[in-house]
Amino acid sequence: MRILVLGADGYLGWPTALHLSQAGHDVAVADNFVRRQYDFELGIDSLVPIESLQTRVAAWRELTGKPIETFVGDLTDADFTYQMIRDFRPEAVVHFAEQRAAPYSMIDRKHAVYTQVNNVVGTLNVLYAIAEIDPDIHLVKLGTMGEYGTPNIDIEEGWLELEYKGRKDRVLYPKRPGSFYHLSKVHDSHNMEFACRIWGLRATDLNQGVVYGQQTPETALDDRLATRFDYDSVFGTVLNRFVVQAVLGHPLTVYGNGSQTRGIIDIRDTVRCIQLACENPADPGEFRVFNQMTESMSVAGIAEVVAEHFPGESTVDHLANPRVERENHYYNVTHTGLVELGLTPHLLSDTLITSLFDITKRYAERVDLGAMQPSIDWRGARAGAPR
Amino acid sequence: MRILVLGADGYLGWPTALHLSQAGHDVAVADNFVRRQYDFELGIDSLVPIESLQTRVAAWRELTGKPIETFVGDLTDADFTYQMIRDFRPEAVVHFAEQRAAPYSMIDRKHAVYTQVNNVVGTLNVLYAIAEIDPDIHLVKLGTMGEYGTPNIDIEEGWLELEYKGRKDRVLYPKRPGSFYHLSKVHDSHNMEFACRIWGLRATDLNQGVVYGQQTPETALDDRLATRFDYDSVFGTVLNRFVVQAVLGHPLTVYGNGSQTRGIIDIRDTVRCIQLACENPADPGEFRVFNQMTESMSVAGIAEVVAEHFPGESTVDHLANPRVERENHYYNVTHTGLVELGLTPHLLSDTLITSLFDITKRYAERVDLGAMQPSIDWRGARAGAPR
Repeated sequence: MRILVLGADGYLGWPTALHLSQAGHDVAVADNFVRRQYDFELGIDSLVPIESLQTRVAAWRELTGKPIETFVGDLTDADFTYQMIRDFRPEAVVHFAEQRAAPYSMIDRKHAVYTQVNNVVGTLNVLYAIAEIDPDIHLVKLGTMGEYGTPNIDIEEGWLELEYKGRKDRVLYPKRPGSFYHLSKVHDSHNMEFACRIWGLRATDLNQGVVYGQQTPETALDDRLATRFDYDSVFGTVLNRFVVQAVLGHPLTVYGNGSQTRGIIDIRDTVRCIQLACENPADPGEFRVFNQMTESMSVAGIAEVVAEHFPGESTVDHLANPRVERENHYYNVTHTGLVELGLTPHLLSDTLITSLFDITKRYAERVDLGAMQPSIDWRGARAGAPR
Repeated sequence: MRILVLGADGYLGWPTALHLSQAGHDVAVADNFVRRQYDFELGIDSLVPIESLQTRVAAWRELTGKPIETFVGDLTDADFTYQMIRDFRPEAVVHFAEQRAAPYSMIDRKHAVYTQVNNVVGTLNVLYAIAEIDPDIHLVKLGTMGEYGTPNIDIEEGWLELEYKGRKDRVLYPKRPGSFYHLSKVHDSHNMEFACRIWGLRATDLNQGVVYGQQTPETALDDRLATRFDYDSVFGTVLNRFVVQAVLGHPLTVYGNGSQTRGIIDIRDTVRCIQLACENPADPGEFRVFNQMTESMSVAGIAEVVAEHFPGESTVDHLANPRVERENHYYNVTHTGLVELGLTPHLLSDTLITSLFDITKRYAERVDLGAMQPSIDWRGARAGAPR
């Protein structure tokens, strides 16, 4: 199958491209390298050193003989997007190419506007390119579990069968997320559903939980194939950050009481989910949604698991929550769609956590402790504005 | 009360500004004149000639002694938006300043992207400006009934109290609209609700039905105060267009079987609704939604009413529906919020229709018949692409 992976220089895009290539698909990748630009802007860096995309692609070919075609450009540039899809003629487009950090979108007005324009326009361009060039191309788009927020009813997979005043309907699941970034993905989901409805496109929206882990079988083959590992307060996902804090003897920083609960998923399951979605496409006109997570855990619970497995002293610090989010909320998520397609989840295990401790120890001298301190406050319209 | 009306050079912004000024409020207006630019782009024009904003404001002052301060600029220019709000320091901001035609947004990719970026970024800038300058300013934002689409359950006012698997929640009403324009307003609504939640802003989202009519008591005072009257297939609202077609002896063009039902409202009620919303602000942190419509009518029903009252021959043509929308659907809308604040609706009457016939006759020689032919097809990603 010909698969184009957008945003393939990022944390998950890169391992996904390798996994699809390893599975025998004909893979092309695209990126504009803006994720590396955010590092320069914020003075942060991946804990694990990463090679340039060109070096990575060459190393993969050297090790496996498998070529990966590379496109360099920006999805908000429609000419680039159309030309790439015309050139490669994918059967599936996997779309990771969005600004993906909630805190980054909450820095200030400029970052909120950038995040929404970048994400919404990039996705609109992809939808139009598919509609005009080949409506049969299956779009596999990364959404986020954060789109749902924390409703007091069960979270279903994108749609809700409801009964109201004696009448029934199947509606898009009502969403109420917690940042301008998460909102950008809600906007995308609405635009995608409409494109499926009017043009008969096929789309899968993957509402992904918080991802943890750093290695897949493919990235572990060679240091040059490593993917990034972010532990800073802006781009770092929570479990990865706790691991780094534990290894450094720094307290694990839990925001608020930590009872806020999130869906989580192992990076190895992420790449497998994308493969399953590509190999089992949505029907023409279908806007299909999966909740791409394997278990729910509270933030305090994640901290406890990390602290428990760390072979040494580890403490937890509760910081004033810089985000505006509910604590002590209901959280019950349906996530059977991908399991029905064949996913066998890796649940969070001591083996995984131990491997993350080892990775962190190897690169411990690269850690910048200051980068872990939350600096972006949801309540001030400008970052750091007084509450 | 100090009220700033954004988009005050448009069909409804201008009569609203006059109505608020007449009611004794201290009014300022803003526009970037892009609505006049769309006329040049599409080769269309208002049936009723309109004066420049400067002439209108001068005429209003001449007739009533009431000044209206004028700001010229674009809301997507954050410096302009912030400076205007700092200068005028409104207590309420009435926000009409968006691209408002569904067919315009469906012309092609560029127009879809323009519509969403223009509308979403303009509103984000207003939200940030309010949050940073004075969070107590009440935002009164024009949404549209089209945001809801045509669900098979009752349409409530923005929020839905639902019970699901034995649990209850109050959620944002699930939306599934029918154009990239309508989607831009759905995006706005989600962004606004979030801004109220995190910054404690006060906002009223007015989901307006299809507006008909051309005169309010204030615009009728003098020809120089007239507001635009659009009858073309892109910007014309359906009842206004039928009136022009009847007067010209042209068939009334109904899309599809005409059973698609919409909420409608008289222009005199629109301006009154805005006044009521301003004078009864939302609470701090409240995202308040009203369905700003007074009755529901099918498109075929509207055509019948116009044909029935036209003093002459009038026929109806059913055209292949260029839009993708449900016909023969359920449509039951709650719209009590504004009535509770004091709205006494003008229902569609023979008097109103007769007055529209008179206005049309007066300017009949200005009609461009070709402009009424639908030219934008929802099914082609490029306008006019074959189905």
